[in-house]
Amino acid sequence: MHPQRWGDPARAEALPEGARGLVELAFGLVDSPAAPPASPPAPGIDVTLLDELRARLGAAHVLTDDETRRLRTRGKSTPDLLRARGGDLTDAPDAVVRPGSHDEVAAVLAWAVEHHVAVVPFGGGTSVTGGLVARREGYAGVVSLDLARLRRLLAVDHTSMTAVLEPGLRGPEAEALLAAQGLTLGHHPQSFEFATIGGFAATRSSGQASAGYGRFDSLVVGLRVATPRGDVRLGAAPASAAGPDLRQLFLGSEGAFGVITEVTVRVRPLPEVVHDEGWRWPSFDAGAEAVRTLAQAGLLPTVLRLSDETETAIGLARPDEIGGQSASGCLMVAGFEGTAEAVAARRTAVGALLTALGGEPAGEEPGEAWRRGRYDAPYLRDAMLDVGVLVETLETATFWSRRGATYAAVRAALETALPGALVLCHLSHVYETGCSLYFTVAAPAGDAPLERWRAAKAAANDAIVASGATITHHHAVGSDHRPWLHHEIGDVGVSVLRAVKADLDPTGVLNPGVLVP
Amino acid sequence: MHPQRWGDPARAEALPEGARGLVELAFGLVDSPAAPPASPPAPGIDVTLLDELRARLGAAHVLTDDETRRLRTRGKSTPDLLRARGGDLTDAPDAVVRPGSHDEVAAVLAWAVEHHVAVVPFGGGTSVTGGLVARREGYAGVVSLDLARLRRLLAVDHTSMTAVLEPGLRGPEAEALLAAQGLTLGHHPQSFEFATIGGFAATRSSGQASAGYGRFDSLVVGLRVATPRGDVRLGAAPASAAGPDLRQLFLGSEGAFGVITEVTVRVRPLPEVVHDEGWRWPSFDAGAEAVRTLAQAGLLPTVLRLSDETETAIGLARPDEIGGQSASGCLMVAGFEGTAEAVAARRTAVGALLTALGGEPAGEEPGEAWRRGRYDAPYLRDAMLDVGVLVETLETATFWSRRGATYAAVRAALETALPGALVLCHLSHVYETGCSLYFTVAAPAGDAPLERWRAAKAAANDAIVASGATITHHHAVGSDHRPWLHHEIGDVGVSVLRAVKADLDPTGVLNPGVLVP
Repeated sequence: MHPQRWGDPARAEALPEGARGLVELAFGLVDSPAAPPASPPAPGIDVTLLDELRARLGAAHVLTDDETRRLRTRGKSTPDLLRARGGDLTDAPDAVVRPGSHDEVAAVLAWAVEHHVAVVPFGGGTSVTGGLVARREGYAGVVSLDLARLRRLLAVDHTSMTAVLEPGLRGPEAEALLAAQGLTLGHHPQSFEFATIGGFAATRSSGQASAGYGRFDSLVVGLRVATPRGDVRLGAAPASAAGPDLRQLFLGSEGAFGVITEVTVRVRPLPEVVHDEGWRWPSFDAGAEAVRTLAQAGLLPTVLRLSDETETAIGLARPDEIGGQSASGCLMVAGFEGTAEAVAARRTAVGALLTALGGEPAGEEPGEAWRRGRYDAPYLRDAMLDVGVLVETLETATFWSRRGATYAAVRAALETALPGALVLCHLSHVYETGCSLYFTVAAPAGDAPLERWRAAKAAANDAIVASGATITHHHAVGSDHRPWLHHEIGDVGVSVLRAVKADLDPTGVLNPGVLVP
Repeated sequence: MHPQRWGDPARAEALPEGARGLVELAFGLVDSPAAPPASPPAPGIDVTLLDELRARLGAAHVLTDDETRRLRTRGKSTPDLLRARGGDLTDAPDAVVRPGSHDEVAAVLAWAVEHHVAVVPFGGGTSVTGGLVARREGYAGVVSLDLARLRRLLAVDHTSMTAVLEPGLRGPEAEALLAAQGLTLGHHPQSFEFATIGGFAATRSSGQASAGYGRFDSLVVGLRVATPRGDVRLGAAPASAAGPDLRQLFLGSEGAFGVITEVTVRVRPLPEVVHDEGWRWPSFDAGAEAVRTLAQAGLLPTVLRLSDETETAIGLARPDEIGGQSASGCLMVAGFEGTAEAVAARRTAVGALLTALGGEPAGEEPGEAWRRGRYDAPYLRDAMLDVGVLVETLETATFWSRRGATYAAVRAALETALPGALVLCHLSHVYETGCSLYFTVAAPAGDAPLERWRAAKAAANDAIVASGATITHHHAVGSDHRPWLHHEIGDVGVSVLRAVKADLDPTGVLNPGVLVP
């Protein structure tokens, strides 16, 4: 990753011409280049403390150079990017340590407890909720615990259709290892190319094909976690009544309860067929009702995504065509994966239902365009920042009966807080009982973009909470959503989180300031 | 319920003739009537403490009479029945309290904390793992907190397909209330007729139609729980990444963390069509491989159950025909529920796959017979005890790759511990990654049936743990499985459970001795 931008620097591009015209029309163009990459502050830790770790892990795996630390400074939210572009690297870790095994992870934790050093587990660095910004006060230092050396496929059980993955595997690496065995995990969040298996588990990630493959938490069969109190392995069976499901405490624990060192996942056969298609709806409401009908009939495609009128008009579902021929109504993308027979049967059933509900087939091209561009939106965000436009996303999930109200409330909150902003939305994760709503906001960055965005985000969070929806469907809590978590789980829920934290991490060295209110 | 037998006394029957002959052949018949119902010991609590509760709940809802206490003594495991039949009521609660609302439940908990009285939440009283036997030592008394007055359907959301149920609703009551709205929960464990919504949640119950409707934990959208620390409401959205899923801590908490006072469940339309059918397999292995194939192809019927050779021969899947014409091979029952169109499509697809895998259709009668007798086996157990035969069940779940080994190990453990015992098994809850194994054991009760069973159960538990399976798929932990739980969740898992318990129930009044090691 680039320290100031998303993803692979070779893939960074200026705005396409069409989009440039559109942006100029909407917001004006203000050339806003990033400052030259800054140096992080000198390590604030007593560097002799690191010698112990060097003896254990090898000197090559305990790093304090500027470049290594710069790349592990914060995540990739728009505020994170704005600060990096402005040269602010005050949150850089004092060192980056790269254990090569579960036992070495445990050794790093023991060292951190002994010296009271804060530890920030680091996978792909793609957090957009401040999950990688540990509180420094009171600690002897902050180290980034980079899991990049734990990237093996440890075991495959073809009979049970499970696989044991190490946490540092990035999405494409995990898929490549599984594909060699004829298998797939099917988990494709927008961060897929960079985010890691451990991060998917620690943040309850959800992928673009969640309708077909399930959320990541539902794909997790077992976990191994290193905690300051010791090692825990969970997941003895496909299902169990042996008390509370403790896996669900570590899924979503964001590095605050322990470091996930192995993830046993459910896998599926590689699909024989992948087919994408588009459908048009006269309105977001009509399309959403169709999505609800599919979900409640047990007839979901593998991928299902519905853009609202604004997102459809802007064409954000098709980044290569932004600013091109504008489309009316709402675009739905449906993707089907599986055996030829299963895909054909599901397409027929879904198509019949969508047609009966008033959908109009829009051919394969919109679906294929979506698939081509499915990981590209974050690059576009950088290109927009370069011309002075702040772009950020936020998401929630709610029950079907509250969908309209939540949508309206969040939109209104954003439009009020950011006059002139463009607010786009799509619905992309679908359940029998409800769905996620994913908003994209674009507004002139202006003189104080960080403050402007912070106020807008707070207004949106308040609106989400007031409408009874969840503060996050798949971006996790981090430090950004932490002030809103108590609304969702109450005083008793907060108390339980604190009790678990105190038990597993009694001296509080694990990702302090993240998740637990 | 009868204090010494399962279920409705009017439905208790002597063994059918055919079964009687079979039992005589296998074990001999020893007339073993229960002792006349005994009186429980006088309440061991300072009865003036109860006056406070009477003032709060009304005198009619704080009961200490023998009959009321007798019916809330222990659960319905075979050891529980043997003790009750022998006149041992030493575990009777000192009083039975019946709060009528969430606030009254909270008031009972506050009273219990103030006076250090142990509280045993009571739903249907159908526990088979010692979930209703609180530790008495050190407490001012033990009260049974009977949820029978909390049995309303509080809300229905037809758009989101959810319903809010109170915990004291028994299975048929909940289904009747939902049916009046055109809806069903679809949760049918063998205890369905007596067990309650709160109990289903607190024990992670799984129903006979779990293949179609899902385990109870997967049906729970939201929970309200009264704890000594306060009230908690969880489940703001269909799915969330807002930290650990705390619902999963209360699901399976067996009354040790709080009292569940509202359960929001996912509901489905009442099925238009219910169709059951039988299939024959040459062996348990062949049938199990077919079940695995269906599960991994995403082609499960609503009900799927496969008896092993012995269970098929005995005909336990058809209690009305026990001892009748013996059948060879293994019987599978497949049930389909849904719209006419969905059932037809699923039957065709399942039938084609089963035929291709070597299954032989056995017509509708075996499936219909299973449905007629689906709740009857526990009555048969009493009839067997009456003639001196101990019958008990136990269950586990494991991954497909370990199915054969777990099956063989548990069977061997039971046959070794109980020479001459008959061990039957079926596979009845199915997942992509594995399945449950449900064992029924019959053996002469002999002179010391409790001790004999305890040794056999311990041997089976040891075998389950050694084979890497879960100590319970759907019977919960209670006090009976508690000594084995640490094998499954490790020292760290036990520590977490204790930390949560200490946080929510700091003085330990909730169901002491149950669940938490």
